[in-house]
Amino acid sequence: MAKAWTGSRIDLHLDVTAAGPAKRRAALEAALREAIRDGSLLPGVPLPSSRGLADQLGLSRGTVTSAYGQLVDEGFLTSRPGSGTAVADVRDPKPPAASPHRFAAVRPEHDLRPGSPDLAAFPLRGWTAATRRVLSAARPELFGPGDPQGRYELRAALADYLGRTRGVQTSADRVVITSGYHQSVHLIARVLRSQGATTVAWEEPGHAAFRDYVAGSGLEVRPLPVDEGGAAVDALTDEAAVFLTPAHQYPTGVPLDPVRRRAVVEWARTNAALVVEDDYDGEFRYDRRPVGAMQPVATCEVVYCGSASKTLGPGRCLGWLALPSRLVEAFVRAKLETEPFSEGVGQAVLADFLASHAYDRHVRAARPRYSRRREHLMELLGEFPRLTVKGVPAGLHVLVALPADGPGESEVRAEGEARGLAVRGLAELYQNTDEAEQGLLIGYAAASERAYPAALEALAGTLRAVGL
Amino acid sequence: MAKAWTGSRIDLHLDVTAAGPAKRRAALEAALREAIRDGSLLPGVPLPSSRGLADQLGLSRGTVTSAYGQLVDEGFLTSRPGSGTAVADVRDPKPPAASPHRFAAVRPEHDLRPGSPDLAAFPLRGWTAATRRVLSAARPELFGPGDPQGRYELRAALADYLGRTRGVQTSADRVVITSGYHQSVHLIARVLRSQGATTVAWEEPGHAAFRDYVAGSGLEVRPLPVDEGGAAVDALTDEAAVFLTPAHQYPTGVPLDPVRRRAVVEWARTNAALVVEDDYDGEFRYDRRPVGAMQPVATCEVVYCGSASKTLGPGRCLGWLALPSRLVEAFVRAKLETEPFSEGVGQAVLADFLASHAYDRHVRAARPRYSRRREHLMELLGEFPRLTVKGVPAGLHVLVALPADGPGESEVRAEGEARGLAVRGLAELYQNTDEAEQGLLIGYAAASERAYPAALEALAGTLRAVGL
Repeated sequence: MAKAWTGSRIDLHLDVTAAGPAKRRAALEAALREAIRDGSLLPGVPLPSSRGLADQLGLSRGTVTSAYGQLVDEGFLTSRPGSGTAVADVRDPKPPAASPHRFAAVRPEHDLRPGSPDLAAFPLRGWTAATRRVLSAARPELFGPGDPQGRYELRAALADYLGRTRGVQTSADRVVITSGYHQSVHLIARVLRSQGATTVAWEEPGHAAFRDYVAGSGLEVRPLPVDEGGAAVDALTDEAAVFLTPAHQYPTGVPLDPVRRRAVVEWARTNAALVVEDDYDGEFRYDRRPVGAMQPVATCEVVYCGSASKTLGPGRCLGWLALPSRLVEAFVRAKLETEPFSEGVGQAVLADFLASHAYDRHVRAARPRYSRRREHLMELLGEFPRLTVKGVPAGLHVLVALPADGPGESEVRAEGEARGLAVRGLAELYQNTDEAEQGLLIGYAAASERAYPAALEALAGTLRAVGL
Repeated sequence: MAKAWTGSRIDLHLDVTAAGPAKRRAALEAALREAIRDGSLLPGVPLPSSRGLADQLGLSRGTVTSAYGQLVDEGFLTSRPGSGTAVADVRDPKPPAASPHRFAAVRPEHDLRPGSPDLAAFPLRGWTAATRRVLSAARPELFGPGDPQGRYELRAALADYLGRTRGVQTSADRVVITSGYHQSVHLIARVLRSQGATTVAWEEPGHAAFRDYVAGSGLEVRPLPVDEGGAAVDALTDEAAVFLTPAHQYPTGVPLDPVRRRAVVEWARTNAALVVEDDYDGEFRYDRRPVGAMQPVATCEVVYCGSASKTLGPGRCLGWLALPSRLVEAFVRAKLETEPFSEGVGQAVLADFLASHAYDRHVRAARPRYSRRREHLMELLGEFPRLTVKGVPAGLHVLVALPADGPGESEVRAEGEARGLAVRGLAELYQNTDEAEQGLLIGYAAASERAYPAALEALAGTLRAVGL
């Protein structure tokens, strides 16, 4: 049964038939809140005395007094001595925006963007099994703050895995777990600044998003030119660190020349500088075994960075650093000062996944798939003699240089977009945009196996349409 | 069968019996790397010609040439025209430290620290069931970068949950998911600074760790005194924001006085300032229904913050913001500029856990447990008339004021430590340490049900031992 209070401006309809005074009080409160929020009761409107409202609604006076008190406490009502109870000024928010995913990147129909693995090939069965094992053996500490350095079993499993597959010389004590390369870069910048660094060098062209993070932290970022031998490290001078992608330069796809590898280590030793080795896709080489990481030949100078983004996908939010011993404490302190913890269950599951070699099997299974895709892409590009493919057969993308006499990358990308195709441009990866070269970054991993052939067709159609 | 090369200074023992040239080459490389790393082969030592080593080891010359090439590429060997191949300078790292958990906080035997729920009561069965449902229904996008605002189903589930339990007026569009209150605070500071803010106010005493994060971001933090009515908000002037814990002031445990609630909203409206509402333990009130959040009476002024830390434990790494509509875009941009993603599976599991009301059931089950523990603690403290308990029956801790004539908190904590007992001190939570009062923060949730009685005994013993 609904009862009504006819106020000065509105009728307040209340369902006060609920059983028991607590429920009736809750119903009265809810109705008053709703009326205040939706503007039925405007700011300043006086409420009846508790006795008056109680009589009108057939409630006890205590129920009304108690509801008024609660709403005064919450700020919906005001109560001043002598002036009774009134509606407070509770302004409504603006209407919400339309799309539930207004900030999410829209997945293109034909996804040839670099940087993502084939998420449809996520090793769900193995991951689910590892998750089941972890949860069934879970002890309370798994749900606690955990070790700011990262879970020990994951650090140990990574030290083993990185040693086996990338030659990295490390141990659980020198590995720090992060929530991905994003956090790794933040921590590196923070530690560098805490040690008085002011300037770092960054490959040009290079990974622009992460370069911007470092610049945003207050460090000056100097561009380090890249040529066929990778980063021209002889241009390094008094920088505190250089960020490199030695196995497969991003985005040009060349490995760092062996002479330069040695030279940059010498430079780091002479200048007490750091070499940040971003081994972002070192697992993927198709023509030969991968060149090992730089870290093992300069364990005191190299901060080695990896993540699960290119193997399991960016949604894992797990990355790692293999550090010189002397820096471990500074990095853990930087974590404690910013974002100390990584999610525990995910760390434990990845540790299980690595230790059971399911991670190796997943990478081994992905490699021939991506290699075949790369071959198909190369065949297609071979039909366009004005295009030049750069780099070695590795990673998850190729860089294609566009001819000097056009069309430019924005023209190609616009034409592609009209066909539902997304690739990336080279020019946007330069810090010094005046010297940017024109090119396309074509990722062959992001699409699913089923979607890939159509994506290649869309690419061919796009290239033809712009006259390439 | 092991073969040996007797070099100028060392014998290199190699197992080159592996089947196939690829494996023999790998074995040779591994042996050379190991010898270089462990110092058996010192920098500068010349290696035999490839023909010479091949003859000695019974390998083909191609195998040795190819292994040398790989190790030159990796930096273990140097090769200069005319001077042959030699060992590069590969220095060893310092020995690793002893403990695998050198940076992890040591769990005390008797854990009466505030801020953590009982991790032994983690709802593992329900969480495992939710995880199974999420993984068995997983689509590839679950493993991708995801929506920087946070997964839609989690935002929707939180909007519903926060509305039901805390009165928060929001919708999926205005919720932003973070990796916990840490990240929430970072984002708030970043957004404030991007809008030109220079100064914020912080409760004194207050949550010191987070205050330090804000100060570290470059904002000036002014202390806002706290008394029996919570933060003295009439002291606010031209600050861009005030960080408050209205439901249960941390650490004093008092709710913000209703008159002050209204006053701070008025201040925010007049000054176009923000009120950050840290609802860190709003679910836990034992003597009455919780006072609702401030947010619903000032949806345009309040940034509402919550997390799963006090219910499921800090290891979830999931927090949330309910924002005024106009700020959503700025917060998502701040996420994209720093740490854009939160782990996808964990978000989806929490969404399932909320939507199935397992979260409500968990909180409902925890409340009487913690309430009983609080009663036992109050009984114990009642035996010490020189102690004054502050605050209302709520949250996961009580604040105990120490008598002015001693003993001080450091004495109590030292005595406790000798008995394996950990509590926190009040004085360390002040920004202005000269005016710090002496007190103990005693958390009654962190210990397991089984361990709690012994922890109380250790507390009683400690208090007696210091003459209280």
